[in-house]
Amino acid sequence: MKLHIAVLPGDGIGPEITQQSIKVLKAVADRFDHDFYFENAVVGAAAIDSVGDPLPEATLDLCKKSDAVLFGAIGHPKFDNNPDAKVRPEQGLLRLRKGLGLFANIRPVNTYEKLLDQSPLKRERIAGADLVIYRELTGGIYFGEKSTAEDGKSATDTCTYSVEEIERVAHLAFKAAQQRRKKLTLVDKANVLETSRLWRKTVKEVAQAYKDVELDFLFVDNAAMQMILNPTQFDVILTENMFGDIISDEASVIGGSIGLLASASVGEVSAMFEPIHGSYPQATGKGIANPVASILSAAMLLDHFSLNKEADIVRRAVEISIQMNVCTQDLNKDNHYSTSKVGDFLEGVI
Amino acid sequence: MKLHIAVLPGDGIGPEITQQSIKVLKAVADRFDHDFYFENAVVGAAAIDSVGDPLPEATLDLCKKSDAVLFGAIGHPKFDNNPDAKVRPEQGLLRLRKGLGLFANIRPVNTYEKLLDQSPLKRERIAGADLVIYRELTGGIYFGEKSTAEDGKSATDTCTYSVEEIERVAHLAFKAAQQRRKKLTLVDKANVLETSRLWRKTVKEVAQAYKDVELDFLFVDNAAMQMILNPTQFDVILTENMFGDIISDEASVIGGSIGLLASASVGEVSAMFEPIHGSYPQATGKGIANPVASILSAAMLLDHFSLNKEADIVRRAVEISIQMNVCTQDLNKDNHYSTSKVGDFLEGVI
Ligand SMILES: CC(C)[C@H](C(=O)O)[C@@H](O)C(=O)O
Ligand SMILES: CC(C)[C@H](C(=O)O)[C@@H](O)C(=O)O
Repeated sequence: MKLHIAVLPGDGIGPEITQQSIKVLKAVADRFDHDFYFENAVVGAAAIDSVGDPLPEATLDLCKKSDAVLFGAIGHPKFDNNPDAKVRPEQGLLRLRKGLGLFANIRPVNTYEKLLDQSPLKRERIAGADLVIYRELTGGIYFGEKSTAEDGKSATDTCTYSVEEIERVAHLAFKAAQQRRKKLTLVDKANVLETSRLWRKTVKEVAQAYKDVELDFLFVDNAAMQMILNPTQFDVILTENMFGDIISDEASVIGGSIGLLASASVGEVSAMFEPIHGSYPQATGKGIANPVASILSAAMLLDHFSLNKEADIVRRAVEISIQMNVCTQDLNKDNHYSTSKVGDFLEGVI
Repeated sequence: MKLHIAVLPGDGIGPEITQQSIKVLKAVADRFDHDFYFENAVVGAAAIDSVGDPLPEATLDLCKKSDAVLFGAIGHPKFDNNPDAKVRPEQGLLRLRKGLGLFANIRPVNTYEKLLDQSPLKRERIAGADLVIYRELTGGIYFGEKSTAEDGKSATDTCTYSVEEIERVAHLAFKAAQQRRKKLTLVDKANVLETSRLWRKTVKEVAQAYKDVELDFLFVDNAAMQMILNPTQFDVILTENMFGDIISDEASVIGGSIGLLASASVGEVSAMFEPIHGSYPQATGKGIANPVASILSAAMLLDHFSLNKEADIVRRAVEISIQMNVCTQDLNKDNHYSTSKVGDFLEGVI
C-alpha cells in the first residue's frame, strides 16, 4: 500500500517521539513491502516562532492532500503564563482539527500485566480494564464564540452543540461498542446543562439503531469518580469535547503512564494520529520522553487503513518491550532506556 | 450561642443523613449550653412533588432569615432520564446558592490512617494528603444563559465570569492558604478558554496581596491526572464552578468514600453546609447511607460561627467512630452499622 503521511512534530518532546514512530512505520513498510512517504510541516509554538502562525496554510494544505497526519505535541510555557498572548500554539491544533473535520477523537485505555503495579491504583481495581473514550473533537466550548469585555472586566465562552454533531460521533461510538463488549456510557451534565440534555436526547435516539448495545448515563462529576473507583465497568465512553479532555487524561493513570496513551482523530475524509500527552516542555531534548503513545498512535494509523496485521505487530512489539523492561524512565526508574533506544528496540523487533 | 438553623433535607438519602447531623448538633448544644433552633423546609424533587417548585419562596425566606442552612441532597432519577422536563430538582439547589449569594464552596479532602487501605489508590500515594478545594459556586456555565433552538436542533450554554466574581473567591482561597501550607493552585484551561485566561490574570493580581503564598497553575486535564498521581502535592486548589464540581468528586476517592466529604458554601451574609455526595436514590430508606459527610458539614457550620472547640469535638468523635469501626457499609463491609446507629454513636461520644 502507498501512503502519504504528513508529519507534524510540533513542540516540546513532539519531535523526538514522532521520530520513533517514523522509525517504526518505516520498519513496517520494509517488512510488508508498503510505500510510506513522509513529509514534515511546522505547527504550534515552533510555527509561531518561525512564521508567526501556529497553523501555516502550507501545513494545513499538506495535511489535506496527505492520507494521514502523524502529530507530535503542542504547547509552550511562555504562552501559558501570558494570558494576554493573542496568538497561541493550541490554536494551531484546534484549527487543524476543525480544518480537517476531525470530529471524533478515539482514546483507548488498557493495562499491561507487567505494569499493573506502576499504577497509583491498586492492582485489583485496574486488572482487566479495557475501555475506549469517544470524545467529540470539533464542537462545544473549545470552538464556541469567545469574548472579553472592552474594559477587560468580564469574559465569556460559549458551548454549542447541534444534533448533527452529536449524531455523527455517536454512530461511531455505537459501532465500536458493537465490536466490543456492547456497552456504551454517555458522560454529560444533563442535570444542569442544556447542551447535555440535547446530548442525552440525541444519543437515546441514535441508540434505537443499535439495540444490541446497552446504553447508560453518568454525570461527569460521578464519572470522574467512577473512573478511579471501578474502571473495569466501562466499555465505550461517549462524551463531548471538554469532558472528554478531562476524563481521558484522568483515565491515563490506570495504565501507569500517560506516556502509553494513543489516539486517533477521524472525520469524513482526514485522519490524524497523536499521543494524548502534551509537549512536556521540562523533558524536551533530554531523551526521557516515552515514545510509546506516539508509536501506538501509529498503530492506530495502520488500523485505519485496514493494515490490521501490521498494527498488531506494532502493538505486539510494544508488549515485548514492556515485558523485557525496555522502557523509558516513567515506567522503569532504575534501568531505563532513552527515547530513541526504545524506538530502536521496537524497530528491531519489527 | 443562639443559632437558627434552616434544615433542608431534600431528596433521596438527604433526610436520613441530615437527621444524624441534627442529633449531633443537639448533643453539642446540650454539652456546651448553646441554643440551636432547627426549622425544616422542602427543596428539590420533594418540593416539586409537594408544591410544584424545587425552591418554594417560603424555603428561600426561611434560609435568608436563618443564621445557617443545613442541606441534605438533591436529585431524582425520574428527572435525569427525562431531558424534556422543564422543572428539575437541581434548579432548586442552584437557585438557592444564587439566592443566598453563596459564591464560595469549600471542600476539604483528607485521609484517616485507619481507612488508607479502603481507597482505590495505593496507601503510599495518599498517606498525608490534605487539601481543600475552593470552588466558585454562583457563576460560570451553570448559571449562564441557556437556550435550545426553536426546531430543537441545537442547544447552547454560556460561561461568563467577571473580575469581581473571581476576586472574591480568590481572596478567601488565599486567606485559607495563609492559614495552611501556603500554596495555592489555580485549575483552569487557559490554553483554550477566554474565561480561564481572565481567571489566570485576575488571580495573579490578587496574589500580589498574598506574597507569602506560592501560586501555581494547572490545566484542568492535567489536574484530573495529578489528583490521582500525587494528591499530596496540593494544599489549596482554587477553580471555577464546573471544574470544581468534577475535580472534587474525583478527589473523594482519596479518602476511601465520598460519604466522608463535607462542604461549606459561604457568601457575604449566608452560609450553607452540605455533603458533597448526591441523593444516592438507590440507597434511600435502607439505612446504609454514610452520615459522616453531613456530620462533618455540621462541624464546618460550628467552625463558621467560631465554635472551634465544638467543631473539633465533632471531628474527634468521627475519628473515634472510624477508629472503632463504627461505620456504614461503604467503609465496613463485614460488620457495618446503620445510618442512624452511626449517628447514635457519635451523639453518645459527644
Ligand atoms: C492542547 C489542548 C488544546 C488539547 C485539548 O485540550 O484538546 C489537549 O489537551 C488534548 O487533549 O489534545
Ligand atoms: C446537583 C448538582 C447541581 C450539584 C452541582 O453540580 O453543583 C452537585 O453535583 C454538587 O456538586 O453540589
